[in-house]
Amino acid sequence: MEFRLIDRIRERTAQGREDVRLGIGDDAALLAVPPGMELAAAVDTLVEGVHFPVGTAPADIGWKALAVNLSDLAAMGATPAWALLALTLPDTLAPAAREAFVDGFADGFAALAGSQRLALVGGDTTRGPLAVSVTVHGFVPAGQALLRAGARVGDAVLVTGTLGDAAAGLALWQRAESDARAASLVARLNRPTPRLAAGLALRGHANACIDVSDGLLADLGHICAASGVGAEIEAALLPRSSALLGLFDDAAARDLALSGGDDYELCFTVPAARATEVQADLARLGCGATRIGRIVAGEGVRVRDADGGWLEPSRRGWDHFAA
Amino acid sequence: MEFRLIDRIRERTAQGREDVRLGIGDDAALLAVPPGMELAAAVDTLVEGVHFPVGTAPADIGWKALAVNLSDLAAMGATPAWALLALTLPDTLAPAAREAFVDGFADGFAALAGSQRLALVGGDTTRGPLAVSVTVHGFVPAGQALLRAGARVGDAVLVTGTLGDAAAGLALWQRAESDARAASLVARLNRPTPRLAAGLALRGHANACIDVSDGLLADLGHICAASGVGAEIEAALLPRSSALLGLFDDAAARDLALSGGDDYELCFTVPAARATEVQADLARLGCGATRIGRIVAGEGVRVRDADGGWLEPSRRGWDHFAA
Repeated sequence: MEFRLIDRIRERTAQGREDVRLGIGDDAALLAVPPGMELAAAVDTLVEGVHFPVGTAPADIGWKALAVNLSDLAAMGATPAWALLALTLPDTLAPAAREAFVDGFADGFAALAGSQRLALVGGDTTRGPLAVSVTVHGFVPAGQALLRAGARVGDAVLVTGTLGDAAAGLALWQRAESDARAASLVARLNRPTPRLAAGLALRGHANACIDVSDGLLADLGHICAASGVGAEIEAALLPRSSALLGLFDDAAARDLALSGGDDYELCFTVPAARATEVQADLARLGCGATRIGRIVAGEGVRVRDADGGWLEPSRRGWDHFAA
Repeated sequence: MEFRLIDRIRERTAQGREDVRLGIGDDAALLAVPPGMELAAAVDTLVEGVHFPVGTAPADIGWKALAVNLSDLAAMGATPAWALLALTLPDTLAPAAREAFVDGFADGFAALAGSQRLALVGGDTTRGPLAVSVTVHGFVPAGQALLRAGARVGDAVLVTGTLGDAAAGLALWQRAESDARAASLVARLNRPTPRLAAGLALRGHANACIDVSDGLLADLGHICAASGVGAEIEAALLPRSSALLGLFDDAAARDLALSGGDDYELCFTVPAARATEVQADLARLGCGATRIGRIVAGEGVRVRDADGGWLEPSRRGWDHFAA
């Protein structure tokens, strides 16, 4: 059974990669890691109604399921290579609806995979509530991966792109807002762009790096915990899109930028003296990066408001499974 | 969030493996494949009510989720190394019930992982309908993996262990049968043993190999399709356990052995002249193997009954997602 559905995805994602010695169709794929490279591996699951709203287009689900995993590779400074896909589809779908879902899903998955020369090397499809689990593999020269641990007191804290857009997009989608600005934010929710080129460019420069999947406060908090340091962020410096600022008041936009998940930007730290040079490097790749704060002694993330006081954010980030 | 649940599993599965450069806790694991080795990678998902009955013990779910994946490595002749786990748990579970589930799941997963020196290197937990997706990785010397393609006309067809037990166990579990023979069959369903040592021993000997997850007819059919050959099986030669034969009549036991899934034995072909030697090799590992038929020109799998006629099996194997 696996093969009928997975084959349709494979047709759209075929990549001529010499490191794939045996692709889909046997009990396992056979893969070759280039000499001198470490293998970076990560898994993420998307469940309907938890990680994407009911009614999300199949192509967007396919794109996003891969994107959130590629974002983990980006945060390590790794180059994507292979993915394995576990897709669970409801058996209440009629055959035609299932085919339409698979076609759409494959289109979205393949659009992103193709742009990264990523090969789908394994798959399993089963029936059950709609969920997608992707395991992704990439290469990074041995010893050069970007880690969460490594931030040092005095480092500048930077973030790529803009924050809060995806969480805003979710709110707008739920309200069925449909103007152009809302559409741009909903697109950030449904079609996140993993910052792979930025991750590669940060190798040898960033002391610590993470992707912003659960919200800036939560994810920068992970860097602080792993590095044994604290961080201070200036709310006034948070990069926010014009669409976000056009549709939400300043306080709401700030809270979304601090705590909204699903943006898949990179948050990283570099020695303060090199922050400008790193920003220029990323700008040449078409990826803006904004300096938003600094690493300090202590622990945890604090946020200074425009008037110089400390904010007490109402939410510390998304937790899909809060105890 | 991921870390609270995954950490409890990791505590029980910690393996001191030098090839794990960075384990759970960052955006991705960093792994080193030994020189000269290819990486074998496979993914399988278990969904409650589809791949295991509602009410299955958490420890059995943990064991089986890993076992079915290790069975894919066994069928390739690969040595297990690492796994990534995606676990989806219902948010209707109270915290204490969730903890009890995770503890049990971790115990079962770790019991099997520990016996194979397998390290859990990545995980994602989320809320939703109960499902487990495991991606497993193993090593095989370059060019030596066992494939489905490669069976040749004249090869003997063999299978390890006994067939039909797990499907019988499912039937008995559903009837709540509880005597010792029934318990042994239910254990085959809940705690399958991946034939890893047998898979290693078959490298350099077997022309084709697959694990019996969907039923002998279906899986031997995959070997035939991949190899461009047919197969003839003698029903009288099918290896069946005394528990199976004690609780089912001969025809029912035969059909279970032909079409029942979830046994995770290996089905393989070897040149006929070497079948006895290979059987002896496997016997020294404590793994019986039975010669059940031969590879012929043509296509598909035919089954000869004890009277010399051809059987028309009522089912060609399990298909969890039949169109």
